[in-house]
Amino acid sequence: MTIDLRLNPDEVPLLLDLYELTMAAAYFKQGRNDSACFSLWVRRLPKRRGFLVAAGLERVLEVLEQFHFSQPALDYLDSLHMFGSDFLSWLAGLRFSGEVWALPEGTIFFGQEPLLELRAPLIEAQLVETLALNQIGLATLIASKAARVTAVAGGRRLVEFGLRRTQGADAGLVAARSSYLAGFAGTSNVLAGLRYGLPLYGTMAHSFVMVHDHEREAFARYAEAFPNQTTLLVDTYDVAKGVDNAARVALELGRRSIKVNGIRLDSGDLAALSRAARATLDRRGLKAVSILASGNLDEYRVRELAEAKAPIDAFGVGTAIGVSADAPALDVAYKLVEYGGQARLKTSEGKMSLPGRKQVFRACDSEGRPVSDLIGLFNERADQLRGEFRPEPAVVRPLLEEQMRAGRRLRPAPDLAALRARFLAELEKLDRRYQDLDRPASYPVRCSAALEALLKRERESLDRRQD
Amino acid sequence: MTIDLRLNPDEVPLLLDLYELTMAAAYFKQGRNDSACFSLWVRRLPKRRGFLVAAGLERVLEVLEQFHFSQPALDYLDSLHMFGSDFLSWLAGLRFSGEVWALPEGTIFFGQEPLLELRAPLIEAQLVETLALNQIGLATLIASKAARVTAVAGGRRLVEFGLRRTQGADAGLVAARSSYLAGFAGTSNVLAGLRYGLPLYGTMAHSFVMVHDHEREAFARYAEAFPNQTTLLVDTYDVAKGVDNAARVALELGRRSIKVNGIRLDSGDLAALSRAARATLDRRGLKAVSILASGNLDEYRVRELAEAKAPIDAFGVGTAIGVSADAPALDVAYKLVEYGGQARLKTSEGKMSLPGRKQVFRACDSEGRPVSDLIGLFNERADQLRGEFRPEPAVVRPLLEEQMRAGRRLRPAPDLAALRARFLAELEKLDRRYQDLDRPASYPVRCSAALEALLKRERESLDRRQD
Repeated sequence: MTIDLRLNPDEVPLLLDLYELTMAAAYFKQGRNDSACFSLWVRRLPKRRGFLVAAGLERVLEVLEQFHFSQPALDYLDSLHMFGSDFLSWLAGLRFSGEVWALPEGTIFFGQEPLLELRAPLIEAQLVETLALNQIGLATLIASKAARVTAVAGGRRLVEFGLRRTQGADAGLVAARSSYLAGFAGTSNVLAGLRYGLPLYGTMAHSFVMVHDHEREAFARYAEAFPNQTTLLVDTYDVAKGVDNAARVALELGRRSIKVNGIRLDSGDLAALSRAARATLDRRGLKAVSILASGNLDEYRVRELAEAKAPIDAFGVGTAIGVSADAPALDVAYKLVEYGGQARLKTSEGKMSLPGRKQVFRACDSEGRPVSDLIGLFNERADQLRGEFRPEPAVVRPLLEEQMRAGRRLRPAPDLAALRARFLAELEKLDRRYQDLDRPASYPVRCSAALEALLKRERESLDRRQD
Repeated sequence: MTIDLRLNPDEVPLLLDLYELTMAAAYFKQGRNDSACFSLWVRRLPKRRGFLVAAGLERVLEVLEQFHFSQPALDYLDSLHMFGSDFLSWLAGLRFSGEVWALPEGTIFFGQEPLLELRAPLIEAQLVETLALNQIGLATLIASKAARVTAVAGGRRLVEFGLRRTQGADAGLVAARSSYLAGFAGTSNVLAGLRYGLPLYGTMAHSFVMVHDHEREAFARYAEAFPNQTTLLVDTYDVAKGVDNAARVALELGRRSIKVNGIRLDSGDLAALSRAARATLDRRGLKAVSILASGNLDEYRVRELAEAKAPIDAFGVGTAIGVSADAPALDVAYKLVEYGGQARLKTSEGKMSLPGRKQVFRACDSEGRPVSDLIGLFNERADQLRGEFRPEPAVVRPLLEEQMRAGRRLRPAPDLAALRARFLAELEKLDRRYQDLDRPASYPVRCSAALEALLKRERESLDRRQD
């Protein structure tokens, strides 16, 4: 027996659009399979976003390293009566043999900047288009959204609660991992805890209170089952009475050395309710009982509560982060930029690409704060580009790192906690103007002189491709 | 070797929030495991939505039927040092033994109406909360969004192209299936084609044109590889020249009996470009060459193009449907409504539930058109409720159907194409006022007199649960 809510590793290469396979077959028929470079970038930042956070790379590298079409996959393709047996036989032996340069996960980046460049024989590079867009798009989307909450939470603990509303199971796992990468403390998602070693958090549901005849009974039974790990949900019925009941239970159990850690507010005016709850708890001598707030929170509500100095110690954030509610997709593109050693360019209205293999160069001031970026050509060197920045910066460094060569990863997957720490350090250095939630300043990104020259040359030569 | 982009069936039960397990452990400790009924519904329709389309049931039934905690899952829970060995041993033997009543997939429904009611021993019913919300929420979200496109497309062919932007792999599969359920013709997603037997569609990417030195060469090579299955993408560079090149290639190949089926426009002013393209093609005697349009389409753009009578034969719709861009999550709730035979109710601000096991009754006129719904109690009968509708309707029928009893499905999974046909027939009967994309009329949904009385009684008795 099997179930639809699964994904077998050997099904993964079929996560593609049919046209990738038909193009592959047409290339195969022509014997056209020279080295191609595809660039993956975000065309425009979503509204009110000043920066993005790269994520999703690890999964893509894993998939590339193990890429192959299984026999059931090939049998299915055969059943479509679209593909010749010579092509399918060849596909059976296909492995990914290319190289990947990419931003490490957790890197802050901006519009137009490639976050991944993949160079491989044309067919290999084409077949992984959809998968790369899907996975890097989602992980980057969520990390970028979660980073906005981190930016305004003023150090309060953030917990990801989104699984019930994420767009499917895969999205739930990615939401937990990406939000942790972007500074969250942990998640309620148990499978994500197992997969990624994330700290798990949980409280109780309204149903727990409702199955008991009395709210205090529910609170006491829970705390007895999880002494010193208990957060009591106080808004099932009347909140003021709920807080009062939580306080009474905390005091009673305290005499038996059972500690209640916190209470949770999940609805209503969280600023007012948290102040009233704090006052009630303090009056009863329960200063150590913390307050967790949840319920349709996003970065704006968290900022509002933080600015109002609401006595909230931790936030549970669900749907808004889990689906990146204000911008549920990134305008990611994966486009051919070089074939057979020659730069390529598309000029579709509103969707122009930048030709050639590239590198992203970041200039920082003497304190390590980013001041502007240049998108340059792959063979440009940071020290030669210093003169193109005005004023000349203290440091210029390339951001895209070689991740994979000849189809093999160059190093083991980095530690997620280390990537998180690195991201938090980067965010600390990013000028607050770019972190503004409403009208972020536009971080300066330009093309290098060499890239501009290539773009001009390529545009001028396009006519010959159509006439 | 394994990869993170997978989901093993035995991991599925860990797709839950930690609190479901801690509540389960607390119930276990108390020996509290009477029969509970949980109701799953959408609190409010998203803005500008007049109806929703139920989906996701099949997966939930599959998961319930096979629900068990594997040894690796139990080992992980043990490693958290939160759960006693007696509880974990008990959990190892746990299977789902309950019953499920639900709307069949493809049923049109409205806010506040339960689309699923699950009745089982408390712990079983609680443990599947997150999974049920996640899966039914997503599938219903996408089906409901796709139905809006179907409603305005005037019978033109719709193809789902969203995989590259869906929120992960699981969402990509659900998007393809749900949009097909809601009237789409098929998808570009190859794995979805395999899983669900969906018709597959594809064209070519801009990269295909770009790797060839000349656009006409690209078109000819593709058509030769896929004679009679070719749609040429004409907007890589200048569109007018692209259409002209497509026409020239179609004519040249036509002499060799190789047919070009269509062209595809993927950017720019699709109404104007399609008219110009149609004129060019017709002038060359290529009336049979169809036009497919894509590029950031949603229900509003499709309606606009349909109303403008743009000569477009088919639409490729991606991101907008794939992530339900204007409303990327439904306000789904899964709440306890009965425990140990007694109705239960929560009253949290803005999140009140309706108590008791329920049934949804739909009144239709003599031509089978829905006129209004009543949410009633489970034991109410359609014929006894006729008097509560004004005017008295021709037909009243219950919508929730028994799907599972004692943990076993009552029938095999229905055929997806049959569900799709049934949905299309239902949509045809739904008054256009409820299908309006901008200001849909509010379909009348009320509670039966018996449910109102129960609600009143329960509200009045709540004080005793807190005092």
